[in-house]
Amino acid sequence: MPVELVRTGGDPLRNGFPALYAEMQRFYARQMEFLDTHDTGPWAETFTEDAVIELPSPAPPVPARAGLAHYVRAGAARRRAGGLLDHWVGMLDVRPQEDGTLRTRCSALVHAVPDGGGPPVLYVYAMEDVLVRARGTWHTAHRRVTRDDLA
Amino acid sequence: MPVELVRTGGDPLRNGFPALYAEMQRFYARQMEFLDTHDTGPWAETFTEDAVIELPSPAPPVPARAGLAHYVRAGAARRRAGGLLDHWVGMLDVRPQEDGTLRTRCSALVHAVPDGGGPPVLYVYAMEDVLVRARGTWHTAHRRVTRDDLA
Amino acid sequence: MPVELVRTGGDPLRNGFPALYAEMQRFYARQMEFLDTHDTGPWAETFTEDAVIELPSPAPPVPARAGLAHYVRAGAARRRAGGLLDHWVGMLDVRPQEDGTLRTRCSALVHAVPDGGGPPVLYVYAMEDVLVRARGTWHTAHRRVTRDDLA
Repeated sequence: MPVELVRTGGDPLRNGFPALYAEMQRFYARQMEFLDTHDTGPWAETFTEDAVIELPSPAPPVPARAGLAHYVRAGAARRRAGGLLDHWVGMLDVRPQEDGTLRTRCSALVHAVPDGGGPPVLYVYAMEDVLVRARGTWHTAHRRVTRDDLA
Repeated sequence: MPVELVRTGGDPLRNGFPALYAEMQRFYARQMEFLDTHDTGPWAETFTEDAVIELPSPAPPVPARAGLAHYVRAGAARRRAGGLLDHWVGMLDVRPQEDGTLRTRCSALVHAVPDGGGPPVLYVYAMEDVLVRARGTWHTAHRRVTRDDLA
Repeated sequence: MPVELVRTGGDPLRNGFPALYAEMQRFYARQMEFLDTHDTGPWAETFTEDAVIELPSPAPPVPARAGLAHYVRAGAARRRAGGLLDHWVGMLDVRPQEDGTLRTRCSALVHAVPDGGGPPVLYVYAMEDVLVRARGTWHTAHRRVTRDDLA
């Protein structure tokens, strides 16, 4: 049976939006699970080949696949040493663009337990992605991560 | 191609529910982003003109647009002083009403870093809204914020 | 008006996925609300009669309805003593199975304020459910809760 949508006042994204929003929520759930379980292969697959990530640091942007595979492996080493790092994505906004890309904005909670088990720390970051569609799914092509107190 | 829904056993909200749920998640993502980035104009627009908010305090309910614009500006001042305040909405339930309004219930995480940068504090609130539809979108008409230990 | 879906490259879950994903998000929002408000009856209804839950402990799996009704009542007692316990589910992945069941994976935040009001503690768990459909809705039939540092 076809879905009858609530009328949304001429919103051009009306038709595909619920499907897209659910898909993007699942996308981030999986991408963060790959990150936190240190599953570098599937995790790299969620980015384009030439994806770049800007982190809240003075360093230049990092090539996502190479730089973040390192990050994932470092997380695995830390976890073996007793530390924990969990990423949570929420407050997701999804804005399809005229050129067929997506822009998303979300808030990312990072919950870190230091090596050896000291008191956990919680950080909140803003994460803004540009995503492109290829091979039947979305891939992060550019990511900017910011934190107000590190601006 | 029309969407074939999973059969949901005669749930009267079946037809519009996925679209409505995605729309309300995006609504709260944007409303909280406006709050945390101190964007008073767009933020006030997410409320009706005469919206009222009940906070977990002995004070009477606050007119949302006037009272909370003050709250947003106070947040901006605090952030300039080195403090941080981030709102997260999750665990969202959405219940359409016979009269065309919506009732929502969610859990709101508030992550606060004090001025000067002391250890952050995390609070969890329950937030219950009544929303009405006008000018093609939903607006919060009434909000009740509670916390068990402040009852 | 029928929903036009974004093309998702032959994903077999395409047709029902947005509806299912929204339904499961609401399912967990309600299940966790029942848990945190100590509403044992509706809470037990979200499980099958013979549901089993594996907790991150050396103890054998717990029958969900009996064992967790006890857990909910213990939570109510703790809350009366000044403690607080809030559960947040996010990062939800939903995978329909060939046999009509669902497998879900999510990350659960648990925010606990000790009796008497000491500093709150935040834990992050992975939660994996098998769900079956009966009487028009989904029910958790099996749950496995894990935490890396308790493996």
